[in-house]
Amino acid sequence: MKTALAEIVSIGDELLIGQVVNTNASWMAHELNQAGITVVQVTTVRDDRDAITTAITDAMNRADIVLTTGGLGPTKDDITKSVLCEMFHTHLVEDAGVHEHVLALYKNRPDVLNRLTETQWLVPEAATILPNRVGSAPIMVFGQSDGKVVVSMPGVPHEMQVAMREQVLPYLCKRQSDEGGEPIHVIHRTVMVYGIPESTLALRIAQWENNLPSSIHLAYLPKQGVVRLRLSSYGEAGAAEVEQQIQSLLPLIAGNVIATEDLPLELILGQWLVSRHQTIATAESCTGGRLAALLNEHSGSSAYYMGSVIAYDNSVKSQVLGVSPETLAKDGAVSEACVRQMAEGVRNLLHTDYAIATSGVAGPTGGTPDKPVGTVWIAWATPYGTEAECCHFFGDRNQVTNTAAMAAIGKLLLKLKCEA
Amino acid sequence: MKTALAEIVSIGDELLIGQVVNTNASWMAHELNQAGITVVQVTTVRDDRDAITTAITDAMNRADIVLTTGGLGPTKDDITKSVLCEMFHTHLVEDAGVHEHVLALYKNRPDVLNRLTETQWLVPEAATILPNRVGSAPIMVFGQSDGKVVVSMPGVPHEMQVAMREQVLPYLCKRQSDEGGEPIHVIHRTVMVYGIPESTLALRIAQWENNLPSSIHLAYLPKQGVVRLRLSSYGEAGAAEVEQQIQSLLPLIAGNVIATEDLPLELILGQWLVSRHQTIATAESCTGGRLAALLNEHSGSSAYYMGSVIAYDNSVKSQVLGVSPETLAKDGAVSEACVRQMAEGVRNLLHTDYAIATSGVAGPTGGTPDKPVGTVWIAWATPYGTEAECCHFFGDRNQVTNTAAMAAIGKLLLKLKCEA
Repeated sequence: MKTALAEIVSIGDELLIGQVVNTNASWMAHELNQAGITVVQVTTVRDDRDAITTAITDAMNRADIVLTTGGLGPTKDDITKSVLCEMFHTHLVEDAGVHEHVLALYKNRPDVLNRLTETQWLVPEAATILPNRVGSAPIMVFGQSDGKVVVSMPGVPHEMQVAMREQVLPYLCKRQSDEGGEPIHVIHRTVMVYGIPESTLALRIAQWENNLPSSIHLAYLPKQGVVRLRLSSYGEAGAAEVEQQIQSLLPLIAGNVIATEDLPLELILGQWLVSRHQTIATAESCTGGRLAALLNEHSGSSAYYMGSVIAYDNSVKSQVLGVSPETLAKDGAVSEACVRQMAEGVRNLLHTDYAIATSGVAGPTGGTPDKPVGTVWIAWATPYGTEAECCHFFGDRNQVTNTAAMAAIGKLLLKLKCEA
Repeated sequence: MKTALAEIVSIGDELLIGQVVNTNASWMAHELNQAGITVVQVTTVRDDRDAITTAITDAMNRADIVLTTGGLGPTKDDITKSVLCEMFHTHLVEDAGVHEHVLALYKNRPDVLNRLTETQWLVPEAATILPNRVGSAPIMVFGQSDGKVVVSMPGVPHEMQVAMREQVLPYLCKRQSDEGGEPIHVIHRTVMVYGIPESTLALRIAQWENNLPSSIHLAYLPKQGVVRLRLSSYGEAGAAEVEQQIQSLLPLIAGNVIATEDLPLELILGQWLVSRHQTIATAESCTGGRLAALLNEHSGSSAYYMGSVIAYDNSVKSQVLGVSPETLAKDGAVSEACVRQMAEGVRNLLHTDYAIATSGVAGPTGGTPDKPVGTVWIAWATPYGTEAECCHFFGDRNQVTNTAAMAAIGKLLLKLKCEA
């Protein structure tokens, strides 16, 4: 079965000095994959004429579709449009449609509409122009006689995302069907496993893995305590085969499966709460709001998430959450007694069914021999009582707080036996 | 002046289907840059023998140093070690040091120490092995007769980071000085500008920009309301020249400069508060904890950050923060009156000097013609009174809440005239 191959060329100095993380490439790869287009390589290059030319040329040799982002801004360091003109032996002409669009876009922003913005409606004559609804840089499509295509998009994430969803993906799909290509369906199914290390999991399912048909590709993706087992195949027959293999897999890992699709942990918990018309709150010390932010990441969270008290200072723990001053004096803030009172305190204050509390040493400072950096007490107050656990997380401040927030949710999922 | 050129090859299917964002590459690029090594390209390829071989070979043709991450796990989909053996015409041998290290690493985790983990102490005979203090996969260095070098590291971010800082960067620096190379200093200076659109800024400083010496490279990096102006050059003379240009630049953009180095906004605010022994709290509705998490991102935040009330549900706004039920009924939660009361409520409740409150429509649902998605009211309660502002942010839920959290801090910086 033929599947269209794509490559992404990300352009921008900022990506190569580590000032900006290339989130565009992963977002695009995900969308392309969903559309049945396989991404075989991402190449990130500087705002440099030779580097851009070589990267696009090499990518065109390997793939059918090359998508570039970046280098389309109005300032001097942006050279992608000029490089593409040179590569495709064309020159810039004024585009009336883009002109009108840019004027309309900035009609309430005369401060933005200036000499530099005016270069935005100059487009390569040889390119097909797709509209950029939310920005001024046009989306340019260069077709080749061999059927290959290069699409240039802005690097601003929101503009690129709207461009991909509204213009580029529909354009690529139409092109594929115009050329008589079969609609392609790449199948990915993910089983999310919590609470088993990757290599232990691999041994437990080794026999099943060895018996997988060669048409199914298995990957282990461990992150923050979750191991995602991803099974990939092609077409309808592949989908059925993958489903059958998942059914043989599940009994081998019962008790540790939190979802049979790739869902964020917080969304699994949210859906479980919505289905029961129940609510949750958090009381956070070391996670400092991350757990609250995580629970609010998805639209509809107001149905189950009531609020939180971020009790960073001990005065907030005692005065707002009712942690007893004796506990703080005797056991300290990073203790079982403290997190239990925090969880119960916020559950009572905000009248919720569930509450999660965290208190720990995020680091890099503040560790002691008894409570080294990474020590985090987590408590879960539920209608059936309160439980607490002492966890030890590795990494820097950011990793400790993120992994703690994930564990607070992941462990609750296992306790409640919520499964998506 | 000769500067060592590096390329990064990131290996893993998960990076090309968009399941995982390639944060490793930007982290590594940042560290290499700081060490005076210029990263010219990042190539991301699948766990595929040919793709890995081609990517590493091409990178070695262009650069002096090639750093690879990923594909070193104990499971079947990890093939980097085997590909490198083939490329460098070598074979696997048991390494006593790695063996001992892995046994010690997992001495309390017999569940992890199993048949698969045992492959970790098999290493390519031709490689120099650097210790991986926090993981089981060894760091492998392959030197070539032409002085070029390929370093293979694990893809787990924490393991890669420890490996880079403790082993790989010192190794590369020593190698450079052993070979008689000059120590290289790449200079990057960043001026952070808030509250002017990129193209307006470019026009305002056009004359200054046109007069920049050709040895200085200028880049505009706009993100979430901040435009970073980055000036780059080489060596001590370059540093002096950059400093002089910054001094001519600053008067042109007075009133909009929030820092003359690349610092996170929340850190600038934190340092300003610490220097004044003052404190802050937040009361959040639509930002749902992101603002609190942002204020806590840096070590030492407990010196100025007291806590927050995340008042997602209106009952929390009125019962905990004291927002009047009349305001909620008449003006609604997304209103000037509501955010003012939220900010003042949390400032009183947690006894802080400053407080920030947010209430808005994060979307994608909940918008109305009066208050479309992206409408966010922000209030700042200070010792000098309370101010509020209605903002409109673009993008999806994630972008609206992140940009709102950044604006809450950025606008406070301009109000307080804090400058780092």
